Amino acid sequence: MNHGTVFGVGVGPGDPELVTLKAAQLLNKARVVAYFSKRGNVSNAFAAAERHLHPESERLPLIYPYTVELSARDPRYIAALEAFYDESTLLLQDRLASGQDVAVLCEGDPLFYGSYLHLHSRLAARHRCVVIPGITSFAGCAASAGLPLVSTDKVFSILPGTLPEAELERRLSTPDAIAIIKLGRNFPKVRRVLERVGRAGHATFIEHGTTARERVLPLREKTDEHAVYFSLILVPQREVERPGAGETGPRA
Amino acid sequence: MNHGTVFGVGVGPGDPELVTLKAAQLLNKARVVAYFSKRGNVSNAFAAAERHLHPESERLPLIYPYTVELSARDPRYIAALEAFYDESTLLLQDRLASGQDVAVLCEGDPLFYGSYLHLHSRLAARHRCVVIPGITSFAGCAASAGLPLVSTDKVFSILPGTLPEAELERRLSTPDAIAIIKLGRNFPKVRRVLERVGRAGHATFIEHGTTARERVLPLREKTDEHAVYFSLILVPQREVERPGAGETGPRA
Repeated sequence: MNHGTVFGVGVGPGDPELVTLKAAQLLNKARVVAYFSKRGNVSNAFAAAERHLHPESERLPLIYPYTVELSARDPRYIAALEAFYDESTLLLQDRLASGQDVAVLCEGDPLFYGSYLHLHSRLAARHRCVVIPGITSFAGCAASAGLPLVSTDKVFSILPGTLPEAELERRLSTPDAIAIIKLGRNFPKVRRVLERVGRAGHATFIEHGTTARERVLPLREKTDEHAVYFSLILVPQREVERPGAGETGPRA
Repeated sequence: MNHGTVFGVGVGPGDPELVTLKAAQLLNKARVVAYFSKRGNVSNAFAAAERHLHPESERLPLIYPYTVELSARDPRYIAALEAFYDESTLLLQDRLASGQDVAVLCEGDPLFYGSYLHLHSRLAARHRCVVIPGITSFAGCAASAGLPLVSTDKVFSILPGTLPEAELERRLSTPDAIAIIKLGRNFPKVRRVLERVGRAGHATFIEHGTTARERVLPLREKTDEHAVYFSLILVPQREVERPGAGETGPRA
């Protein structure tokens, strides 16, 4: 019997209408649908995908053993996560070996900071893996806020808020356009750095972008210290004069 | 009479099935559709959108005055492009003032290195502008190639190939995951830098990603000097040990 195929399906930033035609068609055909979820939470990926799923498809939630109970540097946390990805891989391999295809729902884009990457790296050598790209959270949030992300010959960088404070400061001390993700408990540190490098006044905070719970506000108007996992900060490129940097057209 | 609305519609990296449900629905309703195009070329955005357009919609091609005939630093080039964006804005304002909505087709994502940004900045103060995000070229190309883009606490940066050689080298001398866009005539320079920093052997070249003309190959197997505008290079993150950087889970 032929092995099944793994489909890593990007379902976009949250709005179910920001799923692609390709993903929607695939989800409607999928008979086994896996998705990562925090214990007791509705998975954001599942919420974006649900209306596109076949009603009789089998659902395989993959429940993280920890989320914020242990420090990310705690060896127990690291070991538990590795074991969890191994077990999730075995669960999928069981279905694949019996000839079933498995669609894995991925928030945003599957290959961009997603948990799917941990399955992909374990499965790709032995199984056919097909990836359907998705709208990233930064693009969804920028569209909601009507904020230009980056243009001409500027650099755009995505910085995880988990980076050490000194590295965040170094990265933000550039004219680059920047999105800062993985805020959560890192939010006070990120805000402190943005203030220090003089970019807090230009930054925008967005939580639950593109969903019914979306909130967009200038960073300076966010007065509390709490940032949900589905939040990010957009920092526009700094317009710094550089001789000869005048490219505005469709060329390279 | 009320003014019309501008819709900046991301149509994704090329495959018409990688348009979102939201964009497809909007394009099907749009009665006036504008798109940037090189003279004598079929616009890539138009090619991705065409099957979703209402057959009786009016089409407004916005034809770039130059593409590669003049240097990007030539003041005539810069002036001509600015005048072109001004004229395109006037053309759209004419429709908006008469109460018509205008959908502007955007390759990839409208707010991410797109020509739409030049219209958005001119129109947003006086007209309602709604942006529909799209799949970026780097996400589409990574999915086609089955290549992880970035994970855990790594930084992902998009570098225009137009950057000076020394800056490209500095940016590539990091563990960051990187996509290099705007290759074209900059391709030999970019390849030279990748060789110098020791990352050429890990890089992947992709042209016309997600379309019927797609070509994916290890950079080292690309022997010529010619890169089309719709090409990019993906450089995976470097795995460098850093004490305490062990985050693998769904947290921040």
